[in-house]
Amino acid sequence: MGALSMLTGAALIGARDITGARSFRAIDPARGAAIEPAFTEAGPEEVAQAAALAAEAFPVYRATTPAARAAFLDLIAARIEAVGDALVERAAQETGLPVARLQGERARTTGQLRLFASWVRSGGADEPRLDSPLPERMPLPRADLRLRHIGIGPVAVFGASNFPLAFSVAGGDTASALAAGCPVVVKGHPAHPGTSELVGRAVREAVAQAGLPEGVFSLVTGTSHELGAALVADPRIRAVGFTGSRAGGLALVNIATSRPVPIPVYAEMSSINPVFLLPGALKARAEALGAGFVASLTMGAGQFCTNPGLVIALAGDDLHRFLTTARAALETASSATMLTPGIAQAYARGIAAIEASGAAEEVARGGTTGGPNACRPALFVTDAATFVSEPALSHEVFGASSLVVACTSEEEMLAVARAVEGQLTATLHLDTADHALAALLLPILEEKAGRILANGWPTGVEVCHAMVHGGPFPATSDPRSTSVGTLAIRRFLRPVCYQDLPEVLLPAAVQGDNPLNLPRLVDGVPAMPREPRS
Amino acid sequence: MGALSMLTGAALIGARDITGARSFRAIDPARGAAIEPAFTEAGPEEVAQAAALAAEAFPVYRATTPAARAAFLDLIAARIEAVGDALVERAAQETGLPVARLQGERARTTGQLRLFASWVRSGGADEPRLDSPLPERMPLPRADLRLRHIGIGPVAVFGASNFPLAFSVAGGDTASALAAGCPVVVKGHPAHPGTSELVGRAVREAVAQAGLPEGVFSLVTGTSHELGAALVADPRIRAVGFTGSRAGGLALVNIATSRPVPIPVYAEMSSINPVFLLPGALKARAEALGAGFVASLTMGAGQFCTNPGLVIALAGDDLHRFLTTARAALETASSATMLTPGIAQAYARGIAAIEASGAAEEVARGGTTGGPNACRPALFVTDAATFVSEPALSHEVFGASSLVVACTSEEEMLAVARAVEGQLTATLHLDTADHALAALLLPILEEKAGRILANGWPTGVEVCHAMVHGGPFPATSDPRSTSVGTLAIRRFLRPVCYQDLPEVLLPAAVQGDNPLNLPRLVDGVPAMPREPRS
Repeated sequence: MGALSMLTGAALIGARDITGARSFRAIDPARGAAIEPAFTEAGPEEVAQAAALAAEAFPVYRATTPAARAAFLDLIAARIEAVGDALVERAAQETGLPVARLQGERARTTGQLRLFASWVRSGGADEPRLDSPLPERMPLPRADLRLRHIGIGPVAVFGASNFPLAFSVAGGDTASALAAGCPVVVKGHPAHPGTSELVGRAVREAVAQAGLPEGVFSLVTGTSHELGAALVADPRIRAVGFTGSRAGGLALVNIATSRPVPIPVYAEMSSINPVFLLPGALKARAEALGAGFVASLTMGAGQFCTNPGLVIALAGDDLHRFLTTARAALETASSATMLTPGIAQAYARGIAAIEASGAAEEVARGGTTGGPNACRPALFVTDAATFVSEPALSHEVFGASSLVVACTSEEEMLAVARAVEGQLTATLHLDTADHALAALLLPILEEKAGRILANGWPTGVEVCHAMVHGGPFPATSDPRSTSVGTLAIRRFLRPVCYQDLPEVLLPAAVQGDNPLNLPRLVDGVPAMPREPRS
Repeated sequence: MGALSMLTGAALIGARDITGARSFRAIDPARGAAIEPAFTEAGPEEVAQAAALAAEAFPVYRATTPAARAAFLDLIAARIEAVGDALVERAAQETGLPVARLQGERARTTGQLRLFASWVRSGGADEPRLDSPLPERMPLPRADLRLRHIGIGPVAVFGASNFPLAFSVAGGDTASALAAGCPVVVKGHPAHPGTSELVGRAVREAVAQAGLPEGVFSLVTGTSHELGAALVADPRIRAVGFTGSRAGGLALVNIATSRPVPIPVYAEMSSINPVFLLPGALKARAEALGAGFVASLTMGAGQFCTNPGLVIALAGDDLHRFLTTARAALETASSATMLTPGIAQAYARGIAAIEASGAAEEVARGGTTGGPNACRPALFVTDAATFVSEPALSHEVFGASSLVVACTSEEEMLAVARAVEGQLTATLHLDTADHALAALLLPILEEKAGRILANGWPTGVEVCHAMVHGGPFPATSDPRSTSVGTLAIRRFLRPVCYQDLPEVLLPAAVQGDNPLNLPRLVDGVPAMPREPRS
């Protein structure tokens, strides 16, 4: 527990620890009890200090070479690993998540940093473009034009409750902002302040070890909405990454767009992740689908952005078999602890609202075997007409709750697809005989979701180049991007063009002899680096 | 005048002409007189019809191959050329712009469409990414993941007053939205409705000739703010392109972000395009710089987004020589007609406000040789301390007005650079001896502007791959993009990921054998098409 004894409860403002007068404690949700130590309630003053340091660090940090920035990302991964098991233990205590899951999440977090490092090293973030001068062109010559991408400026990152490592202090948003050359000010999630501090100290060590300005990273801690609001409103912050509730995301968007200088907010908010069980697949393997569905639904107490909250299938014997298996699995599922008392209460309220609406019938509830904040999984069923006419049924209930929409025809399945809001994912379970229906669904779902899966479950998001974790509103506030995978780095970049600048004044990324050995677009044709990319 | 006799004054809603009860006429600004025919004042009903057709056309249009979409863009260019000289004549009459300039603008417009066609044909818009499945990976296998970009949905384009061809009905925003696979509803600028109709009919002919759904393109005409507001508020519209005033752009952003489903707005609004005359260059060629500056300032009555509205230099003899030359050139410059009476009045008000402020001294005014809406160019001078403390001096006066900031030190020049708002461009005039100062200015200007020029003038924007016509607020509402050049197409795209989808259901762009022969990123490594790209 050497690392845990390191916990000071301070806000990490650049290289300095700031301990304030007001404080809060984490709650162990499995016991419903506060745990030590106390953490500083940061406020507007700490936000201003962190933002000032970030703005000061920005010109230096964004001028680092891709190789230097990649080495820094690798260093963060190594420093997180060096925290050791204390990190996972503290995270488990603060979140109620199992140790094995958190070990996997730590591996994902460090793997993500290393993937981004390799992508940055290979020049994937710069995307330089050069157009050659045409001095003889008539009626006017063409100038020498060169474009590269630079960081947008200091980024505010809001740690998410449900991934205390992979979407928190050194999670996807932080990794992509740092990869883009942007300093980061993290607003730590108050549900896991100890985990946040341990990771924050690891990042700070990497900043020092890499010889970077201290303002490249700060961590402010606190429970108030004012803290986050002050961060988004700070004029030095130039973009925001957020994962959380629809209300929380929209509040930040509102602050960001009301600033004298508005800034982009990448808020990942709300998704019920429709799963279509096509008739052939359902007939062939109703029981296996029922079991697989409940496993996906109840994983991590259903606290995934990609939790399957909606199932669409044709009514009939096959759906009956699916529901029978699902009911049995759900009723015997163990009650996992939810992340916080607040989330457990919101879950209970969401279930009660569905029950009170009379718009859906309960298929099954899980038991009450867990502790004070245990999640009792819930499964409901309704018909297509009711689903389409009752918008409340489309609202996400964060946790292991799902709704089956029993349709009377394939046309009704298509109508449900058209009726859903924007989603992170949409899933098709299908056999060869289902391809015709799938071909009708796909164009609809492409306009609804960022990722379309076949014969799998949406929980589980691969960190790679081709991932899209994003989607139309309200899944996110900006459908043009992803928050997972290397394409996420683009969110924090902007293009700059240089016209007829003398070679010696040009940034290395666009110099004639390509000293950084980057892949570039030259006169519209991709020009590869001289050696294979790492 | 065959083409002009085609003018009906109708709104072009898909394939139908809609003529309404209320109408308006264009004004010939050189004479200050209305010109025939009358044009329909479209309203919310026409907007709804156009948006419905666009939504209906979207699934079909976005499913076209890159080759088909490219052929359509080429066809639009050909149809615009086929309108003949009547187009330039009508545009000259409606805008007061010289015929030669409009001929050049027409060439730019058709060249832009053809460049985008070639870029789309070569696969530049799709950006597919494939990550291979890793079924043996421990602890979990990796799925088969494939990403492509698709159109964001129907796009509303607002024609700009100052480029009746290149930034209007078939201008940059329309070209990039169509290239991205998005249907377009244009809100034509009321100052050039005849030009708009001629180009709109050309686009409509191309739609029909390409066998595309009629809703791929509509043109609504009118003078009311309500028309534009209804268009941006329509739930079927998914993105907006706008070039115009800061107030107009912000009004549209406000509507777009207040919708139940918010959408992105790409508004290009306000830029004064600072020009830094570094000491060596100013000493070496003060007179040439003065003459070049006035030529750039007064071109097109100064009605360019990239008009040089701010000049920064060290006070002294060299600046005096520059100002002397500039004064002489400005006083003898001919008074060009401004685009509309409203723009001419706003220009006069802007000049009067500067004069009334007492914050700047008049260096020179052009004469009053022109017609009722002629622009009298104006040049003012102030000192750095006044400029930094007086935000009103940073506001754009649309037209041939500019302000010289005489600095007492290089440090003051840097302070002015830090004080300016976001810009489309920043320009450095420099000699070798100025490189040290330029190296200090460049990092500041990179954070302020989308394009940085050396030893040229910002007016004149090349349509190519490496162009950035964009920049931090208030130059635009979204610094992450450009409205000119092939990178603009990305604004209207969003990524979609396919996980484990059967090969036959995959879109061609990400199928295993690459039937569209696109450049793709495979496992993080660029994979080029089999043959040289066209």
